Amino acid sequence: MATNDFVRNAWYMAAWAEEVPEGGFLPRKLLGQPWLLWQRSDGEWVMNADRCPHRFVPLSRGKREGDVLRCGYHGLGFDSTGACVLNPFGGDVPPGAKVATLPVVERHGALWFWPGEADLADPAQIPDFAFVTGPDHVRGVLVMDAGYELIADNLMDLSHAEFLHVETFGVNGALLNYGVQTVEQDETGAIWNKWDMDGSEPPAWAAPMLQPGERIDQWIHIRWHAPATMALFVGLARQNTDRSEFVVPPMSNPHILTPETATSTHYFYTRQPGEESIEMVRRVFLEEDEPMVRAAQDAMDGQDFWDLRPVILASDAAAIRARRRLMQMRRAEAAEA
Amino acid sequence: MATNDFVRNAWYMAAWAEEVPEGGFLPRKLLGQPWLLWQRSDGEWVMNADRCPHRFVPLSRGKREGDVLRCGYHGLGFDSTGACVLNPFGGDVPPGAKVATLPVVERHGALWFWPGEADLADPAQIPDFAFVTGPDHVRGVLVMDAGYELIADNLMDLSHAEFLHVETFGVNGALLNYGVQTVEQDETGAIWNKWDMDGSEPPAWAAPMLQPGERIDQWIHIRWHAPATMALFVGLARQNTDRSEFVVPPMSNPHILTPETATSTHYFYTRQPGEESIEMVRRVFLEEDEPMVRAAQDAMDGQDFWDLRPVILASDAAAIRARRRLMQMRRAEAAEA
Amino acid sequence: MATNDFVRNAWYMAAWAEEVPEGGFLPRKLLGQPWLLWQRSDGEWVMNADRCPHRFVPLSRGKREGDVLRCGYHGLGFDSTGACVLNPFGGDVPPGAKVATLPVVERHGALWFWPGEADLADPAQIPDFAFVTGPDHVRGVLVMDAGYELIADNLMDLSHAEFLHVETFGVNGALLNYGVQTVEQDETGAIWNKWDMDGSEPPAWAAPMLQPGERIDQWIHIRWHAPATMALFVGLARQNTDRSEFVVPPMSNPHILTPETATSTHYFYTRQPGEESIEMVRRVFLEEDEPMVRAAQDAMDGQDFWDLRPVILASDAAAIRARRRLMQMRRAEAAEA
Repeated sequence: MATNDFVRNAWYMAAWAEEVPEGGFLPRKLLGQPWLLWQRSDGEWVMNADRCPHRFVPLSRGKREGDVLRCGYHGLGFDSTGACVLNPFGGDVPPGAKVATLPVVERHGALWFWPGEADLADPAQIPDFAFVTGPDHVRGVLVMDAGYELIADNLMDLSHAEFLHVETFGVNGALLNYGVQTVEQDETGAIWNKWDMDGSEPPAWAAPMLQPGERIDQWIHIRWHAPATMALFVGLARQNTDRSEFVVPPMSNPHILTPETATSTHYFYTRQPGEESIEMVRRVFLEEDEPMVRAAQDAMDGQDFWDLRPVILASDAAAIRARRRLMQMRRAEAAEA
Repeated sequence: MATNDFVRNAWYMAAWAEEVPEGGFLPRKLLGQPWLLWQRSDGEWVMNADRCPHRFVPLSRGKREGDVLRCGYHGLGFDSTGACVLNPFGGDVPPGAKVATLPVVERHGALWFWPGEADLADPAQIPDFAFVTGPDHVRGVLVMDAGYELIADNLMDLSHAEFLHVETFGVNGALLNYGVQTVEQDETGAIWNKWDMDGSEPPAWAAPMLQPGERIDQWIHIRWHAPATMALFVGLARQNTDRSEFVVPPMSNPHILTPETATSTHYFYTRQPGEESIEMVRRVFLEEDEPMVRAAQDAMDGQDFWDLRPVILASDAAAIRARRRLMQMRRAEAAEA
Repeated sequence: MATNDFVRNAWYMAAWAEEVPEGGFLPRKLLGQPWLLWQRSDGEWVMNADRCPHRFVPLSRGKREGDVLRCGYHGLGFDSTGACVLNPFGGDVPPGAKVATLPVVERHGALWFWPGEADLADPAQIPDFAFVTGPDHVRGVLVMDAGYELIADNLMDLSHAEFLHVETFGVNGALLNYGVQTVEQDETGAIWNKWDMDGSEPPAWAAPMLQPGERIDQWIHIRWHAPATMALFVGLARQNTDRSEFVVPPMSNPHILTPETATSTHYFYTRQPGEESIEMVRRVFLEEDEPMVRAAQDAMDGQDFWDLRPVILASDAAAIRARRRLMQMRRAEAAEA
């Protein structure tokens, strides 16, 4: 994939709304370009290029004056449409002196933007994350030093947990020994990878909640929307209850990836409250997943994934399907351009 | 601009003469190449390539033996004309074993070199910095991590002081409110940008030297010679005295830029004696100007300035004229080559 | 030289055998690629690509299970031939799921590999380092941040010791004043550079072992096999004894270079036991040679050695001959490919 060869006609998550300081702005590099996110005094969300058209410096080096962004270099002012509305030294400002803007929408506490053709931006297509609610969802974001497709590969094939996360997740081989994989597409176009472990031995931490020797039904389901917006659903239920008697409450988590650049990614997630959970996120994401995914990226050394002729395993079915979908979308956009 | 696509037929400042250690040499990268500056025992200034023609290592890793430079690797010796005059292990030295040299001239405490056709090097064309004299001119140099044209843009449009240097310079909007800009060329070919603020309110620090409510004439004039040799003249005078009764003595300062590489620049300046002035230079140059100019450079990401279609404002007139002059010079040199 | 444009049909040293942990493996980048060295339980040495064919991550992020390498990402297992012998989630593994392997042979405590055509790999051609034996040869390796050909230039022209190592070696000009150089090829194809200093004044440290005013015969001989496998032989003997009465025991040392990348090199050496010798190695290799060789590399800035038209001196004869041999080998391999 060439640098910045991103799918354009899709909703990407830009930030959690709560990340944007009140009365201020949030600068963030997205899809290789610098952007500014802010909320107008009437409540409208705004996404402007973080780049003055005069000498190209980031507007985030300046300041907000009400609903006007003032450049910190020579004092030009821009409104939320990107129009230059102020030149402190007078003289005409050419009509080309505009700052780019993108459609941006808030849903379930997240800000979503559409970098492609504005006419096609339909907020109804934003994937459903209504489950991100309540005190059990502390919102977080980190930057991973790896491309979004490699991180999506990682998430879409959760069998890696049996090797990479053995200690942190306390897994005991249930997926290896009992896992049955199903890959399917739903009516929203999402691709699902479902691992079901019916009648499996419980993990050690769940044993005290069960009868001695009692078995359980477990599942790990992940849902993917293009370009790399994922939701993870995990559950443990008493055997033969049709998954109705949970051993612990089922867990739902967003794993939403937005390219910062071709080789680095904003990773939006939620976690349980508390210090222990912060430490868990740090270990799993930054000590286990990121080094491995970055090692894959380093080994690829800028070459195309398919050109390297990767071995394809049965467990890759969902990840490969997601990659193919992206490839089709990129080709369709290239054909139209 | 391609890397190293520098104007060749022009005088560039290499160093302050006082930077060269007595009996030694000063290594410095200039226009992308390593050079050595030194003074022969008869007082002649010398500028040699800092590169042995045998294995290419810097001669500055060796030492001076009188007026001979000895390479520190295999002991070859070169005189001030660049000729190899010593091979310690005997055998012929091919006549091609020469070190490049450039014309270099001392003027007003600065060393000037001419990287182009030596026949065209006329020291009478070195811009006049005779005002750099006396104890009020402590000479200094720093390296800015930005290309020289972007730094020249910064200096040739001093309106930016009203935004970037508000606190350090204690400006009070005089330029914004009273500034009249004149751009002109003088008989030496220099381009001037003159901001005059007649009848303006004095800055707070000057008020105690004036009658209550008294107004002043202020001016900020900057002079540019190609490629990026600038002089700044600032003054404050009592109103209606035809600028003859100064509130404080007028200030003259060199701002001389020489490319280290395409994206970094030697910045030669003078400052007042004393700790306070060192701190002022550090803040203005390194905390205010450099980060902003480097932000412009980062945002341009290696693209050509004109290709990016910058918005041109009235206040850019002088900076744009200087850029056009350089472009003409480069084209003329390319046509001759 | 283009990156990775290495001679292929030659024996390169990969490691000292003692570097490979028992029951484990040694990951090492060689000729720009990641490799794993290990010893099978039956004693056979093995060299596999350190790269899983599934998602390209290093197998060294996984672990050894007996004579099987298990990938740490998704658990694939590979045997010493590189064949995939284990897929924990079942399903077919395509026959293309192979890890590359190379011939590797142990000789005199070193592991040698042949990256070219396996049919041509004849262990009888491994250069003779039988002298690396006994407690006086403590084996070591370091990585120099410079290309192997520049380091070989350095070693093949030991006249540089008179300038670069004056203090560390306590040289007193014997090579400069008495050195006679002979370059020759032996029956194994090795190129020798021999400096002989017959009837020379002894270095200061040797004087106490001699009569006042007694002179000695000294020699510094270095042997080169392609691509950059060198052996150094140094001696001091009483004059007119036909080099039979040594002042101190003669010294033999390996200086074996293997490219890590085009611009960095594994440097295999031996040293005397003791702290003093560790310090000597550090000073000579890392404070004297490496900075100078890296300075040459920096100055060349990625350009080809010959394109830069280096001055050739008589003392370069052996180094140049070695470079020409490599050039011929590369051309022959390119013609066959």
